[in-house]
Amino acid sequence: MNSTGRLFRVSLYGESHGPAVGIVLDGVPAGILLSAEDFTHDLTRRKPGRSGTTTRIEDDIPIILSGVYQGKTTGAPIHISFENKNVRSADYNSFNEQPRPGHADFTSRVKFSGFNDPRGGGHFSGRLTLCLVAAGVVAKKCIPEITFQSHVTEAGGMTDIESALEDALKKGDSIGGVVECIVSQIPVGIGEPFFDSLESVIAHLAFSIPAVKGIEFGSGFSASRMTGSQHNDAFITREGKTQTNHSGGISGGISNGNDLIVRLAVKPTSSTPQSQNTLNFLSGKMENLQIQGRHDLCIALRVPVVLEAIIAIGLADLCLIHGKSG
Amino acid sequence: MNSTGRLFRVSLYGESHGPAVGIVLDGVPAGILLSAEDFTHDLTRRKPGRSGTTTRIEDDIPIILSGVYQGKTTGAPIHISFENKNVRSADYNSFNEQPRPGHADFTSRVKFSGFNDPRGGGHFSGRLTLCLVAAGVVAKKCIPEITFQSHVTEAGGMTDIESALEDALKKGDSIGGVVECIVSQIPVGIGEPFFDSLESVIAHLAFSIPAVKGIEFGSGFSASRMTGSQHNDAFITREGKTQTNHSGGISGGISNGNDLIVRLAVKPTSSTPQSQNTLNFLSGKMENLQIQGRHDLCIALRVPVVLEAIIAIGLADLCLIHGKSG
Amino acid sequence: MNSTGRLFRVSLYGESHGPAVGIVLDGVPAGILLSAEDFTHDLTRRKPGRSGTTTRIEDDIPIILSGVYQGKTTGAPIHISFENKNVRSADYNSFNEQPRPGHADFTSRVKFSGFNDPRGGGHFSGRLTLCLVAAGVVAKKCIPEITFQSHVTEAGGMTDIESALEDALKKGDSIGGVVECIVSQIPVGIGEPFFDSLESVIAHLAFSIPAVKGIEFGSGFSASRMTGSQHNDAFITREGKTQTNHSGGISGGISNGNDLIVRLAVKPTSSTPQSQNTLNFLSGKMENLQIQGRHDLCIALRVPVVLEAIIAIGLADLCLIHGKSG
Amino acid sequence: MNSTGRLFRVSLYGESHGPAVGIVLDGVPAGILLSAEDFTHDLTRRKPGRSGTTTRIEDDIPIILSGVYQGKTTGAPIHISFENKNVRSADYNSFNEQPRPGHADFTSRVKFSGFNDPRGGGHFSGRLTLCLVAAGVVAKKCIPEITFQSHVTEAGGMTDIESALEDALKKGDSIGGVVECIVSQIPVGIGEPFFDSLESVIAHLAFSIPAVKGIEFGSGFSASRMTGSQHNDAFITREGKTQTNHSGGISGGISNGNDLIVRLAVKPTSSTPQSQNTLNFLSGKMENLQIQGRHDLCIALRVPVVLEAIIAIGLADLCLIHGKSG
Repeated sequence: MNSTGRLFRVSLYGESHGPAVGIVLDGVPAGILLSAEDFTHDLTRRKPGRSGTTTRIEDDIPIILSGVYQGKTTGAPIHISFENKNVRSADYNSFNEQPRPGHADFTSRVKFSGFNDPRGGGHFSGRLTLCLVAAGVVAKKCIPEITFQSHVTEAGGMTDIESALEDALKKGDSIGGVVECIVSQIPVGIGEPFFDSLESVIAHLAFSIPAVKGIEFGSGFSASRMTGSQHNDAFITREGKTQTNHSGGISGGISNGNDLIVRLAVKPTSSTPQSQNTLNFLSGKMENLQIQGRHDLCIALRVPVVLEAIIAIGLADLCLIHGKSG
Repeated sequence: MNSTGRLFRVSLYGESHGPAVGIVLDGVPAGILLSAEDFTHDLTRRKPGRSGTTTRIEDDIPIILSGVYQGKTTGAPIHISFENKNVRSADYNSFNEQPRPGHADFTSRVKFSGFNDPRGGGHFSGRLTLCLVAAGVVAKKCIPEITFQSHVTEAGGMTDIESALEDALKKGDSIGGVVECIVSQIPVGIGEPFFDSLESVIAHLAFSIPAVKGIEFGSGFSASRMTGSQHNDAFITREGKTQTNHSGGISGGISNGNDLIVRLAVKPTSSTPQSQNTLNFLSGKMENLQIQGRHDLCIALRVPVVLEAIIAIGLADLCLIHGKSG
Repeated sequence: MNSTGRLFRVSLYGESHGPAVGIVLDGVPAGILLSAEDFTHDLTRRKPGRSGTTTRIEDDIPIILSGVYQGKTTGAPIHISFENKNVRSADYNSFNEQPRPGHADFTSRVKFSGFNDPRGGGHFSGRLTLCLVAAGVVAKKCIPEITFQSHVTEAGGMTDIESALEDALKKGDSIGGVVECIVSQIPVGIGEPFFDSLESVIAHLAFSIPAVKGIEFGSGFSASRMTGSQHNDAFITREGKTQTNHSGGISGGISNGNDLIVRLAVKPTSSTPQSQNTLNFLSGKMENLQIQGRHDLCIALRVPVVLEAIIAIGLADLCLIHGKSG
Repeated sequence: MNSTGRLFRVSLYGESHGPAVGIVLDGVPAGILLSAEDFTHDLTRRKPGRSGTTTRIEDDIPIILSGVYQGKTTGAPIHISFENKNVRSADYNSFNEQPRPGHADFTSRVKFSGFNDPRGGGHFSGRLTLCLVAAGVVAKKCIPEITFQSHVTEAGGMTDIESALEDALKKGDSIGGVVECIVSQIPVGIGEPFFDSLESVIAHLAFSIPAVKGIEFGSGFSASRMTGSQHNDAFITREGKTQTNHSGGISGGISNGNDLIVRLAVKPTSSTPQSQNTLNFLSGKMENLQIQGRHDLCIALRVPVVLEAIIAIGLADLCLIHGKSG
């Protein structure tokens, strides 16, 4: 569904080539300072423009349409809208004829019986992550002590990201990457038993970010190759500080006071510049497909701020549930 | 929280050393054949007894207390209960003094202000996965065409699982593993846009399984090291069949008709036979801790049927939402 | 559905003639004293036995199966179960042939395609209100300052209830009634804007009580015959105390500090001793139906404690949401 | 909260004097014809202008900002927005000094610690019912066979509504009323057992309409004065048609195929032209309050289309859950 959260609730809407995308946030505590300027920093981090990213000029100005009075949140729903500008026309019917590999063209058409908006991926466009980032900005204000640090740790299998991008540009092919976020100062006790563990809530939200293929916490997949005596984090203080942090800050689904460590696997941009051989559903034959337009070569580069946002959204909800809002 | 699902709803309860654990299933369609015998196969698969697994005799007999009449589901909530037998007494207060590394002793005590039931991990015990398996049995009956195959692909970093267990026994240390599930025959179109993608729903449930540190779909973390032209799955039939299956059966969060592929990273059992040096919260000093009792050396061995169960639970809910119940 | 609540969550199960009915409560704060004895008072108030009520001996002993340790709630789900005893056999297939007017025989059969448990009304039995009362006992402990007073204000159109019952016995016909609950000491600010107003939450729960045909708050239906200058409650203290209380303690969906006043219309027991002329679905003819067994002549008499319970359930949830648990 | 629904989901936002009010609808099936013109009929019915209603010119033009492509719903969220025009400035701080009796001024200020938007009632304004009516238009399209008829049956205690309004104008005082809606062609089986009965869902939504003090179904409060043999509706056809319709179309919380009958008690407009004696919170003294501006004398007159809307919203959700969308 297009809404999530129990107390801090997020509902989003919009399509890539429609008039606007936006988000309605409900359950935000009253009295928090909030203005359009507060969004600038994170929205800028999400923006294209760096080597290897899309050239679409996204003039992302948040318009606050409700829930703020005299510069502060009122406790009523906050509606933040972004107009879609510079929307280029194109023959999107071709997506029906030859659905793009790696995209949602085929599945969204089947699910919605052909009534989906195909232009630019419609509701499945990466542009919707703009809404997540905006929601994240508000969520961070609901949990003020908690701090976030995130970055791309790997692209195209290399830790030197610049070299990886140069390679990709040379080869004319898109590449994947790994994005990590470290969150500090989470109080002990956040996360609910069983179905709403801290991992569950974050993982749920993380897979709403397009192109994510995996998520791990702390030791993650490397835990599968360790022994218990290597993996267990010995306690060293009564506040729960541990010698190592293989847990990634979570024990039994509940925050343990150590840094939360989350890593995402991001697949290469599906819209690769390379020509692809794939079925033409009309002719019934395999045919070459050349994706038009210019796209991010490494979509992972834009994910760090989105990952921060979804973690903040999850934490805001769980902190409110636990009774620890800022 | 201890309940999940929108139409196929699961609520669980119980503690390791309380009188019973159980599950209430709501939203199960009426008219499905259901008896205690239906649970035997999957409950047996979860049972200990193989080399390296716990020796606690779990006599897991499901008692159906509501929602079934004349052998068929009635549409009313189904309550399935399991008595806890052979519960051994022990001094669980020591968990407060010296919380076990890797367990929820510390976090559950802080979260619940010391009122949590500490015996055998209480509500955080792996015994609760019994409820998940039972719910999975019913869920599978709600989506009859869909088939599941799951197994441990790796233990202690080795693909020869028997050797890995022998090593672990020799070293007297627990080991982690990787569990994979392949699900076939899912119709195209299952999963909801944005927040309730198929990956989101499955990942959410997967992290309710104790000891899971990561999840990946299809190519997963290896996608981060691939190029777009390697990763994209070319369509070869109008039904959506693709040449490769890096997508793991999901595009844009929606099932695409190819096999769903899910892999979990499972950490080594926290209750390793090795002695551990960790803080005694009473004395304020680092002290040796020797976990008593016999525990699974490789908890991953018991996870395949649980992974199947949670995928079935998620699919049952999403299929009902999409209007494709069995 | 058979579950409700956002933070204080209630899931119930069971049928009139099955092995048990029960309830799972999730989200109950840890550290609250709770024992089987705590239920005695309210369960006794719900019991039959007074003139005009059913003679079925209901030996209602609550069994707490989880979520309580050393006499206190743990923060984990609380499962409370009631065994069904003295269940008499009968030919319930007749309900399919000649569905009882005023009962759910017809609708439940259609909704569940004939797979519903028909014995004693199955899941639609008034016996399930036992679960509501039990949930109410726990809910009241979550909001300790708030006090409840409830009673039947009218039966068979008379305020002298004893006379009304005597009349009903003489005529051999069941009668309806009005039940009122006055709740004091609710802090100002409980209830959420728009869809989860205090009235919305209470009304939602009230209509889960069988036989309820209407609900009103404060002035209720009489407000429709008043003028604004008569109806408006003038403020007399800064704490929000008003001169009159036509609001019934709620303004804009939010508690205003004055007594909450709720009234329910309860229809006459559908199982009247009178013979009824209604369709035989098998023969296709109108035929006499004589309901067997002895039933409450005035079901309203058992509603006060149930009304209290559902108000307490709603308030517990809304108080937790607002951050004001006891 | 400001969102509701399980499959047909409604989230609203906005304040009386902010830039816009609006609604995001999620879960609307794809392929339904939808244009701005579809809203005209119901929005006009809600409009003021008749004798006794407010003179604020509400130029209510719905702007569809997402979820519709080539004139049809896409399956993605539908965002409908209404600009607020002709917003007059005023000194709304006086509401803090002397909260208006019958309004949410006092409770919203306490609940939101004084950060609420007080202008024109802010988020608690009756203007928000515009969103309900818009949602109702879409909901009706999701359940096309079902038809609605609604009207004011009583105003100021009289059935001749025109005379009642003339009286009110002469006296210069606002009056209450009763609004009834009759819904035909609901299939048998809509509504969920126990907590989500058809009555529960409708009553929940009905109390989000400002000024509603009571709701009844079928015989309603008059049932409390009837006997069982009078009240029971005898079956006369195998489709469930009954001789009388005291049930109001619902048995055991589930639609029974007869007309659904719902009645609301609507209190007199709180903003009466009469002067009121009420506390000045600043001076601590009882002082006269004269509400400025012109307001509806009988707010009940605008409720019929809103009542239809909320019933349609509830039915759309329950029909989707039951698997019977149009």
